[in-house]
Amino acid sequence: MSHPGRGILTIVSGFAGSGKGTVMKKLTEKYDDLALSVSATSRAPRPGEEEGVSYFFKTREQFEEMIRADEFLEYAEYVGNYYGTPKDFVFKKMDEGYDVILEIELQGAMLIKKKYPESLLIFLTPPDAAELYGRLKGRGTETDEVIKRRMQRAAEEALCIKDYDYLVINDNIDDCVERVRGIIRSAHHSTAHETGMIDRMIKELNELTGGL
Amino acid sequence: MSHPGRGILTIVSGFAGSGKGTVMKKLTEKYDDLALSVSATSRAPRPGEEEGVSYFFKTREQFEEMIRADEFLEYAEYVGNYYGTPKDFVFKKMDEGYDVILEIELQGAMLIKKKYPESLLIFLTPPDAAELYGRLKGRGTETDEVIKRRMQRAAEEALCIKDYDYLVINDNIDDCVERVRGIIRSAHHSTAHETGMIDRMIKELNELTGGL
Repeated sequence: MSHPGRGILTIVSGFAGSGKGTVMKKLTEKYDDLALSVSATSRAPRPGEEEGVSYFFKTREQFEEMIRADEFLEYAEYVGNYYGTPKDFVFKKMDEGYDVILEIELQGAMLIKKKYPESLLIFLTPPDAAELYGRLKGRGTETDEVIKRRMQRAAEEALCIKDYDYLVINDNIDDCVERVRGIIRSAHHSTAHETGMIDRMIKELNELTGGL
Repeated sequence: MSHPGRGILTIVSGFAGSGKGTVMKKLTEKYDDLALSVSATSRAPRPGEEEGVSYFFKTREQFEEMIRADEFLEYAEYVGNYYGTPKDFVFKKMDEGYDVILEIELQGAMLIKKKYPESLLIFLTPPDAAELYGRLKGRGTETDEVIKRRMQRAAEEALCIKDYDYLVINDNIDDCVERVRGIIRSAHHSTAHETGMIDRMIKELNELTGGL
């Protein structure tokens, strides 16, 4: 990663109905070396939302000033409000040794991968399309029209799964949490992450053999 | 992987003195879904060596016939004898669901990575150059001249570590075994390995949304 942080930046996306939120919650509850990224937004806080925990709340003017100062890993505007991932928070946590997890949709994930190729992209999915449909129906909170749109969106998103590094099936929440955890742990040993160690080893071997 | 096997092909290299052999032995003793590749050789069997376990023993003529028939993942000639990795054995084990581990030196690893880009390349190293030197000295079986040549070779090999996918430090044998195991498990979820699952998901989602 161009940023020298010791932690791994992991980006998790998934279909609506993949159970992303629950997996993220369990992961960060179980492993205290994992930290969830906190987004900034220009929308007003809702009752119970806490500054720096739910979101970093900003005015539109503050948010636009941050955009100009290149302070976001990625940002987007939805129905009149800005949402974005502040670099500062993520890099600080990584410097402290945390592996930082960003739950973010496909377009944002692709933007970050482009800027930071060593970030780890994981896509979550239920075991099959019927299960996805069943979960969306089972919520009982959305109209058939909304469910249809979500399924169409899933069909489009599926075409981009190959651009992620890993595909993890969420058939059982505990297994899924362990798979994601294992993938992040393994990434610490990738040669892309271990460039410092490799450079040190080359230097040491040259010095030592020079003296033999 | 261009070969449709369900298992992962893992290639393990490392400096002389990295403890590769011990790690491989422990790994395959502990996990029965891992299989070690068996090499073919044209050299004569030594006392105690078993056909199909230590090596597949071939005459020079048989070996050369196998080369012509493209039956090796890679092969090389050392001091008048051929050594090679028969495709047949590796692919059969992968089809049976085993993750196959090949312990092989750098040049062979690079040849296989070129032909099979989805294979997993792991490089093992002691924690630092002084430890490597200490292990080689500690064996007490080699002259200073031989140790010097091994260290020079290590300095050259270190320049190619970045061409591997993972660098695993062998500071503690049990930790090292678990790291390698975790990396192989995670590779099962890579999108490069899960192309069948991705294609199925795309097909199912299209069929299901088409009917809504």
